[in-house]
Amino acid sequence: MREVAIIGVGMTRFGRAEGSLVDMMCAPSIAALRDAKVGEHRVDEVVVANMGGARINRQTAVASALVDRLALYPAMAETVENGPASGAAAFKVGYEAVASGMADVVLVTGGEKMRAVDNLEATDFVASLSHPEAEYIYGVTLPSLAGMFTRLYMERHGVERKHLAMVAIKNHENAIKNPFAHIHQKITMEGILTSPDAEVNNPLVADPLRMFDCCPVSDGAASLVLAPLDLAVKLGRPVVRVAGIGQATDTHAVHEREDPTVLKAVRIASERAFDRAKLTPKDIHVAELHDAFTILEIAESEDAGFFPKGKAAKAIEKGMTALGGKLPINPSGGLKARGHPVGATGVAQLAELAWQLRGEAGARQVEGAENAFALNFGGFGNNVIATVLVREG
Amino acid sequence: MREVAIIGVGMTRFGRAEGSLVDMMCAPSIAALRDAKVGEHRVDEVVVANMGGARINRQTAVASALVDRLALYPAMAETVENGPASGAAAFKVGYEAVASGMADVVLVTGGEKMRAVDNLEATDFVASLSHPEAEYIYGVTLPSLAGMFTRLYMERHGVERKHLAMVAIKNHENAIKNPFAHIHQKITMEGILTSPDAEVNNPLVADPLRMFDCCPVSDGAASLVLAPLDLAVKLGRPVVRVAGIGQATDTHAVHEREDPTVLKAVRIASERAFDRAKLTPKDIHVAELHDAFTILEIAESEDAGFFPKGKAAKAIEKGMTALGGKLPINPSGGLKARGHPVGATGVAQLAELAWQLRGEAGARQVEGAENAFALNFGGFGNNVIATVLVREG
Repeated sequence: MREVAIIGVGMTRFGRAEGSLVDMMCAPSIAALRDAKVGEHRVDEVVVANMGGARINRQTAVASALVDRLALYPAMAETVENGPASGAAAFKVGYEAVASGMADVVLVTGGEKMRAVDNLEATDFVASLSHPEAEYIYGVTLPSLAGMFTRLYMERHGVERKHLAMVAIKNHENAIKNPFAHIHQKITMEGILTSPDAEVNNPLVADPLRMFDCCPVSDGAASLVLAPLDLAVKLGRPVVRVAGIGQATDTHAVHEREDPTVLKAVRIASERAFDRAKLTPKDIHVAELHDAFTILEIAESEDAGFFPKGKAAKAIEKGMTALGGKLPINPSGGLKARGHPVGATGVAQLAELAWQLRGEAGARQVEGAENAFALNFGGFGNNVIATVLVREG
Repeated sequence: MREVAIIGVGMTRFGRAEGSLVDMMCAPSIAALRDAKVGEHRVDEVVVANMGGARINRQTAVASALVDRLALYPAMAETVENGPASGAAAFKVGYEAVASGMADVVLVTGGEKMRAVDNLEATDFVASLSHPEAEYIYGVTLPSLAGMFTRLYMERHGVERKHLAMVAIKNHENAIKNPFAHIHQKITMEGILTSPDAEVNNPLVADPLRMFDCCPVSDGAASLVLAPLDLAVKLGRPVVRVAGIGQATDTHAVHEREDPTVLKAVRIASERAFDRAKLTPKDIHVAELHDAFTILEIAESEDAGFFPKGKAAKAIEKGMTALGGKLPINPSGGLKARGHPVGATGVAQLAELAWQLRGEAGARQVEGAENAFALNFGGFGNNVIATVLVREG
């Protein structure tokens, strides 16, 4: 298997995009290709991550449309869909294309234009990834699943309501330092939880989750360029090596899990990624986790192996996951505040980590970051992809 | 790069399926896994090909749902969308997973449940793969593009109306011998073209194309199991080696091509597949081409290199592409009569060829077939995948 590196990074500011889904994907794709400085090397393949173009944008074959817009034909191209883990799945497909030798230079672009539909339609669209007969048909949505999950998690694993708020406050604070983030808004414990106005500022969505526990509905796109490690070195680019990718599935319906508070697919995917990278959670300097809901950052940080089960809340209290802490989590602002354009998210996480490893993350830079970890969480934990990136040289 | 083989094949009868999209994918997946006799080897990855679940079946994350239904967790899983070439693109992704060493046993299942919507909605859904600003917005559909293409092709390349009918008649005849085909109906030159009733039997769709020039709207699913060549040999299964895959894109909008009758992506994809396989079109004993419209079988057979440009019509007249001819094309009945459930088609083509190479194609068997060729045609020729399969031993 050939070693693979990330040699180019690009991103839109998340939030609301004008134009079409394909329009939105052009700028980050061009930025990543310019950043990669591939010179005479042509782009061999374009892998697009997108979940809902067919439904919410009346656009299929997005990868072919993007190739056309960027005049990259006859490059190979396809779209990968994997629910909210579409971004990392597309990255994995691009990685395997390079690793297998089928392609040298691969552009991976993830994007979603979710604000083309209203919030209710967006919620229903996202719910279409739940179990068709055991969940979706009964009106389950992702926030309702997350609410039930949170309640059980609080009962069993020492998480209190304030810890959820701490995750939101931290990620909003980080996002203010990220020019690509959807939300640039400082929030406080008083404002969202303890003051008399908190229930108005921060209304209930799915008890105990409130508005500031849930990611926004965002448009956005992010791009990466992959190449064989030796080509990356030859081009003289800062080299971010893809040290290991792990993926795992779990029961589609959440209620079928022996212990629904254990995210088995997170555990297996993370173990697989660490095994391939020959690293452990202790070696990681910065992580991007999939905090579509605040509880998920807490649960994933435990099941990925960064904290023992039931210990993440205390770590958050101590500031260990804040910028400047021992393991900064979601320096980008995470899904919570950078935003969550579904197909883009997994790519955006890796883009943020590539910037961090290259020392190009500006005000949110984690000093001395050499090893990084991303977790892209599909469904409600039924399809998870973990990726370990390592700075070379 | 590891050598890769097909070790298991399964398919539904195409036509109309009961139950959900995921339900429909189960039977062929199980059939392919049984056929593969992988024994103790677990399934490492499930790649699903599907184009429109999000829109026409309100189902996303189909791969995760299929893993769940088959209890294959924690297998890796994702869905690949590439317009009508989704099937071959998913196959390529599965191939790269094995070739790169990320997976050993991979299940590739393609499926589409198109009859969940009416014919108008199905036509609009398929049209959503055309260029969003230059084609779709003006009301272009795939039949209308194909009609204009056919007219120009007839003017320039010696194709007459009767040749189109000959393709349909041949493929209907082959399909009668295929228990998996959607349409089991013998048609004749009188019935569809020359008798006074022909205009009633075979109404105009997009001049000069008539109903029997167009594939039906079908439900259906097909599955393949991939493994490293050495594992396939060890398991004692008949070995069908994936000798070469080639993929190429072209301008998304058909009118932007210098000569719209030249399918450049077909040429490049085919050349790439033959180069990798170290074979030429002359070495091929049986082919499955993407005859969504009769003209496409003719045009593709020329641009893939089986006949010089303008010579396919004569070859058809001489029966060269019929069963028993020098190069049987679409022994399965093709998209024309086996049917075209979009995400399934590329997988079904390769399933048919695997059966042909294993000598298991029953009444439609091409005697002594050792090398086979498939062409899966996305958009209107903007994203094409060619695959060469070779029987080993």
